[in-house]
Amino acid sequence: MISEREYVAAHAGQLREDLDAWLRIPSISADPAHAADVRLNAEWLAEAFRRTGFPTVEVWDTPGAPAVFAEWRSQGNGGADAAPSVLVYGHHDVQPVDPEELWVTPPFVPTVRGDELFARGAADDKGQVLFHLLGVRAHLAATGRTSPAVTLRFLIEGEEESGSPHLADLLRAQQGRLRSDVIVVSDTAMFGRDVPSTCTGMRGLVDCQVDFHGPDVDLHSGLFGGAVPNPATALSRLVGALHDDAGRVQVPGFYDAVLPLTDAERTSFESLPFDEADWLAGTARSRAAAGEAGYSTLERIWARPTAEVNGMWGGYTGPGAKTIVPTDAHVKLSFRLVPDQDRKAIRDGVERFVAAHTPAGISAAVHWESDGVAPCRTPLDTPALQALVRALERTFERDVRYSRGGGSGPEADLAEILDAPLVFLGVSLPDDHIHAPNERVSLPMLHKGAEAAAYLWTELAGT
Amino acid sequence: MISEREYVAAHAGQLREDLDAWLRIPSISADPAHAADVRLNAEWLAEAFRRTGFPTVEVWDTPGAPAVFAEWRSQGNGGADAAPSVLVYGHHDVQPVDPEELWVTPPFVPTVRGDELFARGAADDKGQVLFHLLGVRAHLAATGRTSPAVTLRFLIEGEEESGSPHLADLLRAQQGRLRSDVIVVSDTAMFGRDVPSTCTGMRGLVDCQVDFHGPDVDLHSGLFGGAVPNPATALSRLVGALHDDAGRVQVPGFYDAVLPLTDAERTSFESLPFDEADWLAGTARSRAAAGEAGYSTLERIWARPTAEVNGMWGGYTGPGAKTIVPTDAHVKLSFRLVPDQDRKAIRDGVERFVAAHTPAGISAAVHWESDGVAPCRTPLDTPALQALVRALERTFERDVRYSRGGGSGPEADLAEILDAPLVFLGVSLPDDHIHAPNERVSLPMLHKGAEAAAYLWTELAGT
Repeated sequence: MISEREYVAAHAGQLREDLDAWLRIPSISADPAHAADVRLNAEWLAEAFRRTGFPTVEVWDTPGAPAVFAEWRSQGNGGADAAPSVLVYGHHDVQPVDPEELWVTPPFVPTVRGDELFARGAADDKGQVLFHLLGVRAHLAATGRTSPAVTLRFLIEGEEESGSPHLADLLRAQQGRLRSDVIVVSDTAMFGRDVPSTCTGMRGLVDCQVDFHGPDVDLHSGLFGGAVPNPATALSRLVGALHDDAGRVQVPGFYDAVLPLTDAERTSFESLPFDEADWLAGTARSRAAAGEAGYSTLERIWARPTAEVNGMWGGYTGPGAKTIVPTDAHVKLSFRLVPDQDRKAIRDGVERFVAAHTPAGISAAVHWESDGVAPCRTPLDTPALQALVRALERTFERDVRYSRGGGSGPEADLAEILDAPLVFLGVSLPDDHIHAPNERVSLPMLHKGAEAAAYLWTELAGT
Repeated sequence: MISEREYVAAHAGQLREDLDAWLRIPSISADPAHAADVRLNAEWLAEAFRRTGFPTVEVWDTPGAPAVFAEWRSQGNGGADAAPSVLVYGHHDVQPVDPEELWVTPPFVPTVRGDELFARGAADDKGQVLFHLLGVRAHLAATGRTSPAVTLRFLIEGEEESGSPHLADLLRAQQGRLRSDVIVVSDTAMFGRDVPSTCTGMRGLVDCQVDFHGPDVDLHSGLFGGAVPNPATALSRLVGALHDDAGRVQVPGFYDAVLPLTDAERTSFESLPFDEADWLAGTARSRAAAGEAGYSTLERIWARPTAEVNGMWGGYTGPGAKTIVPTDAHVKLSFRLVPDQDRKAIRDGVERFVAAHTPAGISAAVHWESDGVAPCRTPLDTPALQALVRALERTFERDVRYSRGGGSGPEADLAEILDAPLVFLGVSLPDDHIHAPNERVSLPMLHKGAEAAAYLWTELAGT
């Protein structure tokens, strides 16, 4: 009998061939000129699922790009219905490539240098979809089974890089076929090459634009200044009051539903080898950390809600001076949410805050940009999460750490609409340059992803 | 012997003819295409001074548009040097005319409807320069003199509507010839047709742009938000802290040099028939008065310093959402100053305020847009002001009120460089539509201006 690890090592060439073929298809969902490529990309993946042995494979159309659905029911586990079911989520579309001139090798010509495979989509997310095909085969070979130990479903959407505009509708329409006991998301990174970790929650989002209107015409600041309401001053006062001096958001009720970190979560975050100075000089490109008093940088990003100004404007913004009291001022605000903050409650609080900070003579409007995104969280004692941790420990032979994500895609919709716990099996790395030139993936990490997936199906089946 | 009033009434036709000729010259200083018109305009005025009898008339070139200088020394008052000297300031350039389609009659075809003469420059400032020519003739005729009772000098500049960029240099270069005991500015309005008033001070100005720089690239607000300094939030906090809840400016030392209104000034302001509701619905186009607690609207505009946001911008300002922590944020601030605030002291205070409100991780820059403008004030007991009040009372046969101006042109430079008290003999009206389509002037008010000027030279001579 071959082990999962041995199978993955012996068949790594197949994964390499699959990557070489699939990464050549420029499945850029944001660019309408690539719509046919995105469809071809979906068809390629459907065929790969079929080759792997999935009995049911379908390409699901949406009003946008197609998604791929695949299912392999577990047999002989005391009857199909007795085996747990798992839905794996990923996406087959990729980011645009510009500026293309910064790529060392062309984005759609997969190229190996050392242990790294360079191509758009290598890490985000084609590599992380494809390691599952190798993982399923390893699982079957190592267990001697002819079907997986759990009923496996895959939903690989085609619009994640465009904000998943049709995913929630698709989940609702197909929930009868998608609903599973566990959702496995494979679209995240580990903390580091030698620091196996898994995401246990993601922040949500609500975002709005606030418009302040004052005088009906721009007024001469000499003839009127000091005697009429200035909407730019008033809006600055509102934004200036959003945080207290300790960095706490002053929206009424903002923290009421926030779950504090458990000791275990806090301890796990603290155990991560995070170098704040490197982070500031590196990806954060900033000269100082900032934020809510009493929390570390990782806690601030992962586990604390925020209020950020994304943009603001009003009055004269050209060269030189124009001494006016302007008619209007605007600010775009986004609020990152953490469990169990409720989008509606936060929106209501923001509207009350705006009303309370709108002075006489100013008319205010609040426009919410979207439905927003709910926050999500998987408690550390969730059985599926502990199964994942065991699978990762077997793979990496190291302790597994817990992380979270500061922003989120459609993960919360998956958990909410399909009503199942989320776990995150992702093996990309923070320096994989996703969304940037020279995106790459570590081939050894993909192999570990396949091995961990093979173990995970066994662990989830409780065998 | 003819009285001043009789002379003005008998010779109003001459003023009307002068206006008709001069207002046809489109002396728009802001438009380089009209540079030759501005020069022709200066030459026309020089010739008009000569016709009136001024012995010395010169056109003074500047690096921009020419100014006109005229002088008529007083004779036989116990020797020329014994008579007081007066410098009258005005300007011969005009504002642009667009939108021209809103003019009922063409802007450079002077047209009388009722008591009003419509043309660009009719009130601002050609009418107020020309009434002086009639005034001098009335003064001579009514007093039987062959030279005025005071030594009269006129400086009529050609760039006031372009911000008087060369006036200060001209004043310094020619101060030996310009220096006089009193400066009379004829470029302001009275409070109302039946409310003769004179300006007794003007606010000054310093203005700057403050730039805040945070991260070196726009950052994803999910991956970084809450843990790095947001320059737009920080700048809003700075601007939000500029005023306390009572509307008082929080720049250190801001009010240290502010002269409180005297009881006489306050009482005079209160006696003006100011209708705040009309003002809000009318020129202020606002739904509420606002400003520093404890002061009336007129006091706020005329006698209290301000801090106004003229413009602000930073981050994403397009349609929809872009959830970033932006790299930069900017604000343009202007501060209206009142006597005896010092521009340098206020600038220093603002820079200290910015430094105190710049959080760690943000770099700040303050750029001052110009030299600014000093505030100016004429105490009510200034003898020249009381002479003007007597001249106005003789003309209008009503009590004369005191007002001030909320913004200022080059008046403070005149007072400062030439070191003489300023008084304001202006007879335009708040509804003369200066700087707007259908500018007009009241011919009866111009006649009153001529009559008041005729009395004023006598009053200033103390005869």
